[in-house]
Amino acid sequence: MAPEKPVVAVTCTAPVNIAVIKYWGKRDEDLVLPINSSLSVTLHQDQLKTTTTAAISKDFTEDRIWLNGREEDVEQPRLQACLREIRRLARKRRSAGDEDPAALGLSYKVHVASVNNFPTAAGLASSAAGYACLAYTLAQVYGVESDLSEVARRGSGSACRSLYGGFVEWQMGERADGKDSIARQVAPESHWPELRVLILVVSAEKKLTGSTAGMRTSVETSPLLRFRAESVVPARMAEMARCVRERDFPGFAQLTMKDSNQFHATCLDTFPPISYLSDTSRRVVHLVHRFNAHHGQTKVAYTFDAGPNAVVFALHDTVPEFVAAVRHCFPPESNGDKFLKGLPVPPVPLSDELKAVLDVDPTPGGVKYIIATQVGPGPQILEDPHAHLLGPDGLPKPAA
Amino acid sequence: MAPEKPVVAVTCTAPVNIAVIKYWGKRDEDLVLPINSSLSVTLHQDQLKTTTTAAISKDFTEDRIWLNGREEDVEQPRLQACLREIRRLARKRRSAGDEDPAALGLSYKVHVASVNNFPTAAGLASSAAGYACLAYTLAQVYGVESDLSEVARRGSGSACRSLYGGFVEWQMGERADGKDSIARQVAPESHWPELRVLILVVSAEKKLTGSTAGMRTSVETSPLLRFRAESVVPARMAEMARCVRERDFPGFAQLTMKDSNQFHATCLDTFPPISYLSDTSRRVVHLVHRFNAHHGQTKVAYTFDAGPNAVVFALHDTVPEFVAAVRHCFPPESNGDKFLKGLPVPPVPLSDELKAVLDVDPTPGGVKYIIATQVGPGPQILEDPHAHLLGPDGLPKPAA
Repeated sequence: MAPEKPVVAVTCTAPVNIAVIKYWGKRDEDLVLPINSSLSVTLHQDQLKTTTTAAISKDFTEDRIWLNGREEDVEQPRLQACLREIRRLARKRRSAGDEDPAALGLSYKVHVASVNNFPTAAGLASSAAGYACLAYTLAQVYGVESDLSEVARRGSGSACRSLYGGFVEWQMGERADGKDSIARQVAPESHWPELRVLILVVSAEKKLTGSTAGMRTSVETSPLLRFRAESVVPARMAEMARCVRERDFPGFAQLTMKDSNQFHATCLDTFPPISYLSDTSRRVVHLVHRFNAHHGQTKVAYTFDAGPNAVVFALHDTVPEFVAAVRHCFPPESNGDKFLKGLPVPPVPLSDELKAVLDVDPTPGGVKYIIATQVGPGPQILEDPHAHLLGPDGLPKPAA
Repeated sequence: MAPEKPVVAVTCTAPVNIAVIKYWGKRDEDLVLPINSSLSVTLHQDQLKTTTTAAISKDFTEDRIWLNGREEDVEQPRLQACLREIRRLARKRRSAGDEDPAALGLSYKVHVASVNNFPTAAGLASSAAGYACLAYTLAQVYGVESDLSEVARRGSGSACRSLYGGFVEWQMGERADGKDSIARQVAPESHWPELRVLILVVSAEKKLTGSTAGMRTSVETSPLLRFRAESVVPARMAEMARCVRERDFPGFAQLTMKDSNQFHATCLDTFPPISYLSDTSRRVVHLVHRFNAHHGQTKVAYTFDAGPNAVVFALHDTVPEFVAAVRHCFPPESNGDKFLKGLPVPPVPLSDELKAVLDVDPTPGGVKYIIATQVGPGPQILEDPHAHLLGPDGLPKPAA
């Protein structure tokens, strides 16, 4: 006779985050411990999220994982580290005498299915949302309630920052075992409601240096990176937290740009050098500085991760004019019908003065599209069983 | 009755130099004193040089200057500083009792004409050769025999390195008055006869940040630049001098690339950031690293100044294959007839293995042309009176 509940399944979502004080470089490769603290903004899941279902069953004969519908190798080390760590936490809890029924699943194999609601081809860092979602979902399945920083971090360092909404810092910690290298919320998503985020998706060149290999080479070869981590970042962390707390947009914006530039400077100081910014990225940088100069104040900020896409911060009332400026400098190739995704942005005309100040040869198609979003909450549990990505048989449901 | 010799005219040439340990940033704007020492290679004047004629006459009523045939404002501060400094040195010498007839010209006005044998549009830094030539030529006219570092430096910092052939260091000095901030030869041009230099002239974008304004902003805003100047460059100067002395090409090449990268990193760490490298520059960087990886040793090095052109170092026997690799990655647009200028380079076929390793989408026209040259001597005096750019009337001769 079949058991009444052969499969325990939980589905959660987790957000993408974008660092405004950048993480680049590990002091411990195995434990994924960084050489400096970092601070990020959690983006809203209405626009960008990972959804993950984890299911355990005594009938499963092995751990299995499907990413965006395709089965992947479950043996890959970072995934194994997450699974090992969450099971260790679950065992610890059980041995503490807490006989949660979910803890019974500890001996069961797990099936995991995960999808992103944004195209991987967009070059948006999906590993942070992915591993945060994995950690959070597994924690529900196994009844783990402790801090999940380490579980997520073992998958991808910056994933620990996607465990919270709003503004999040990842404290580098000092301990060799990494127990104090944890993420914590600096301010909740409701703290700065006027803040908006625009992702300018740029036509990517192929063959970027992966961030894991890239940061390893940087740590080994860049004298500037060591100096940055030790002597520049600590004061910047404090200053960025202050800007967030006080909602000081010009301060926030300038420091965000400076820190992005310094991160890319250390990439260039790496040997062989690493270049993530393309000519289009540089045109966006130029556009932002011209835009701010025109207004006589810092109204827009850019930041770039390990790729050419720009993430732009602005307050709500600046967005329409800035989007118009982007359209002016990068005329959409597809008649503009899908140029703007996400939050609605009303069209406004661009003043002749601003056009003159921007002073660019337009680059048609340089920006493929814009995703307009805002600060958002941390991971969520989806209660609706229809949300499960795995069927009662523990296998991925056919795509709708 | 007209005087027998109404005009004293001297014509000299001076070379371009390319820094392998970069100068970026002044500690004294007026005296043009750098925040770190630098080291350069003097390029051969057969390919790149400035020619300058200076003439003095009691009949001249004002100082005048013509650059590439066009009269320029003689009141510009850097030019005035050079004139003031050379006259100060001449006066000093005269008051020392050295009654050289040339010293009589001290009260005379000077006419100067200067031309480059390379197109300004090529984006090759011409100010170093130009001010070195001015200083050297004026010194002949006024009979000045002391160190000309300060005269040249006041025109353009790196010009003091063009006062010598071969390998030249500009010692930053410590004195507030700059008297110990001088150029000196590390090794003569005959020291390393196998060394070759290729200038890859890249299609330039307009509107680069000028180096004077750029380095000022860098000094004011880049934390990484200060660290570089104080904590990285001193050891690199010693190491580079060793590589030159021992003709250690791999060491020379790697340090040259690292220092170019670090200079551009500090530009990117400047706020607003400065980007001199274009996508084509980055493709050249990639090509060089792939080429070296293919050979399992560092056979080629790049360096970039404040612009997108690459200057490449290689030993003589590496040049043909590297030029073939450049042709492969950047197919010449003009049927290649004028793609290669300067020293002859025999065509060689490119191996399929190397083609596969380069692994690029060719970028036609990305490199406009190559100038092949070598290490060369310092400034020269042209004895032939036909070489004068100024006629007996003290005005520029019509272009031939």
